[in-house]
Amino acid sequence: MHRVTVKRKEHFNAAHRLYNPSWSDEKNEQIFGKCNNPNWHGHNYEVIVSLTGEVDEQTGYVYDMKKLSDLIKDEVLNRFDHRNLNLDVEEFKNIIPTAENIVKVIYDLLRVKIEEQYEVKITLYETERNFVEYPA
Amino acid sequence: MHRVTVKRKEHFNAAHRLYNPSWSDEKNEQIFGKCNNPNWHGHNYEVIVSLTGEVDEQTGYVYDMKKLSDLIKDEVLNRFDHRNLNLDVEEFKNIIPTAENIVKVIYDLLRVKIEEQYEVKITLYETERNFVEYPA
Amino acid sequence: MHRVTVKRKEHFNAAHRLYNPSWSDEKNEQIFGKCNNPNWHGHNYEVIVSLTGEVDEQTGYVYDMKKLSDLIKDEVLNRFDHRNLNLDVEEFKNIIPTAENIVKVIYDLLRVKIEEQYEVKITLYETERNFVEYPA
Amino acid sequence: MHRVTVKRKEHFNAAHRLYNPSWSDEKNEQIFGKCNNPNWHGHNYEVIVSLTGEVDEQTGYVYDMKKLSDLIKDEVLNRFDHRNLNLDVEEFKNIIPTAENIVKVIYDLLRVKIEEQYEVKITLYETERNFVEYPA
Amino acid sequence: MHRVTVKRKEHFNAAHRLYNPSWSDEKNEQIFGKCNNPNWHGHNYEVIVSLTGEVDEQTGYVYDMKKLSDLIKDEVLNRFDHRNLNLDVEEFKNIIPTAENIVKVIYDLLRVKIEEQYEVKITLYETERNFVEYPA
Amino acid sequence: MHRVTVKRKEHFNAAHRLYNPSWSDEKNEQIFGKCNNPNWHGHNYEVIVSLTGEVDEQTGYVYDMKKLSDLIKDEVLNRFDHRNLNLDVEEFKNIIPTAENIVKVIYDLLRVKIEEQYEVKITLYETERNFVEYPA
Repeated sequence: MHRVTVKRKEHFNAAHRLYNPSWSDEKNEQIFGKCNNPNWHGHNYEVIVSLTGEVDEQTGYVYDMKKLSDLIKDEVLNRFDHRNLNLDVEEFKNIIPTAENIVKVIYDLLRVKIEEQYEVKITLYETERNFVEYPA
Repeated sequence: MHRVTVKRKEHFNAAHRLYNPSWSDEKNEQIFGKCNNPNWHGHNYEVIVSLTGEVDEQTGYVYDMKKLSDLIKDEVLNRFDHRNLNLDVEEFKNIIPTAENIVKVIYDLLRVKIEEQYEVKITLYETERNFVEYPA
Repeated sequence: MHRVTVKRKEHFNAAHRLYNPSWSDEKNEQIFGKCNNPNWHGHNYEVIVSLTGEVDEQTGYVYDMKKLSDLIKDEVLNRFDHRNLNLDVEEFKNIIPTAENIVKVIYDLLRVKIEEQYEVKITLYETERNFVEYPA
Repeated sequence: MHRVTVKRKEHFNAAHRLYNPSWSDEKNEQIFGKCNNPNWHGHNYEVIVSLTGEVDEQTGYVYDMKKLSDLIKDEVLNRFDHRNLNLDVEEFKNIIPTAENIVKVIYDLLRVKIEEQYEVKITLYETERNFVEYPA
Repeated sequence: MHRVTVKRKEHFNAAHRLYNPSWSDEKNEQIFGKCNNPNWHGHNYEVIVSLTGEVDEQTGYVYDMKKLSDLIKDEVLNRFDHRNLNLDVEEFKNIIPTAENIVKVIYDLLRVKIEEQYEVKITLYETERNFVEYPA
Repeated sequence: MHRVTVKRKEHFNAAHRLYNPSWSDEKNEQIFGKCNNPNWHGHNYEVIVSLTGEVDEQTGYVYDMKKLSDLIKDEVLNRFDHRNLNLDVEEFKNIIPTAENIVKVIYDLLRVKIEEQYEVKITLYETERNFVEYPA
């Protein structure tokens, strides 16, 4: 048997704002700059989900990519796409929706839905020039 | 002399919502679907500005691309980047910020700043799969 | 009113073979080279559909992009995706599925489904380096 | 001395079909869906070959990229490009040409041609949204 | 018969410098800024050649893309690739190698090699964000 | 706390030549081929800087991406952009500017400016098809 990493890319569009409610407006402005705009801004996020596991001899698959795509749609896109991450998404009620926090929320949502024998890793592009990976 | 089209690409990130205030909420929902989310969503917009004109024999330039880049930053990015198009941008106070309307607003902002001998055309990507051009 | 071109990109994967049944095998090999392989080869095709028309003042739309995407899926992807263009697609029974012919077939399929006031143009990528447009 | 990973990207176009001959047609259809089309479909595959090794002080190279490109052409593209993976490629006579299996076949073909001191890794894009890596 | 535009993309890497010998060093510096570096800088240029013509009924081709690719290699890449445009390329002995001038030189080199019934157009990317087209 | 890798992409354009002064011209030509052109050639380099560290609970950041972007501009782009790597850049006075050596120079320049608790990794694209990573 051989172990392969399979990767599926999906995308969603969302609004967000970087803001720490325990800080003054001045400190929020100083730390987050234009990302702190109280009227929000937004991004086209690209998310890549990587699963590592053994190739099944009968199917030649590590994981059915149609099933993986559907899982990302059910767990991630249905929650995040065309939403305001701060206002509409339960998971960010007490967490600032930075790319670093979004990528961990996506991982946590998917990890519990994927069998334990698979390693899971998430890459999230906030823009073409800024992107993050978790676990590191 | 020869005429060449020169093109410069820039990008900005913004939140928006598609909503027609003269309609009921039901009709807005029916026409605009998830783009009508009252809490906004957002995009990484890519804008390409095309200028057509004669090549200057002394410089070999149609237009100084550094000057064009600065002009786009001054007139477009400073107004739109990390903003809510509906709430923060004067030009969309009475216009729905669809891609079709944004591209015309960008054209109108730049056209008056560029000498008349140049033809101007704008391409705007809202996502990798949805984009618009003006004038048609 | 202002006229804008709106563009929607979709993709499909298909097998094909370039072969002219009125020629000898030698001439087919000489003209089409490796694209003539009797066992087929294939591509990830990207198709961009452009519609030019007036922006509706009520919606800010030239054309509802969700409706355009659905139309491309119904008329093009349902016929071509994961198919053998030569064997499975009625439209290529008597036409060699070169990019030049595929792009015209796509145009003809869509043109009759789109109201006459819109201009329609199709771009088809066979590979990242080979692509075609119709009408020219 | 320092160790660097060098990467070379090449591409090929091929037809294939996912089909397990030990299953009924119904089970093949159920598991592989439209990828099971008996008339084939195809892809533009992109392959990235990564070699990790020490930088030679005289050349500043880990590996001559021209030589690596030629090796990929000789061993991979000559076998796979403009071919039907199931019918034309010896290595898939008894293996289903899923991305997971193709990436391992490519690795095995190249590993024996590259000196042992180099680590080798292969990334294979079947589409822009589906891709695999081996070894994991 | 139907007319189609076919496009082929190729690339080359070259060094250049923007410098007008009839100006003082100060004026060159003022107009061309860092592009005037006497020690040169360089780019990965991408060139797209578009031919518009009628589709041949026998071949389904406007123009054989292999032949077009070879022509671009013979006439453009062999002259420009891994060269210093100012020092190594006859065509720029008396012309500043701006993108606007390079694109016209490429057009002139190819136009005479392509039969008159085809319309020819060239797009040249100097960077992902700066590109030009000729004829306009 | 959770560890995340954050990545920032920047670009620069430069000229270079591959040449080992301890070798004869013949041997330089034989080993480096067209990359040995004495009149230089050049590239649009893309550099991705990856930092791995713990997410700060107050900011939701591993590292301020604006600060990272500024650091890359100060240490890398200011030295390399629109320069001749062999002639203008102190760091390559005695090192051949291959991608393998450039990526290590970039790492060394940035590593000393970034706090020790972060892991640092650099990816450098010389072309779309040739790229390197350090540390391996």
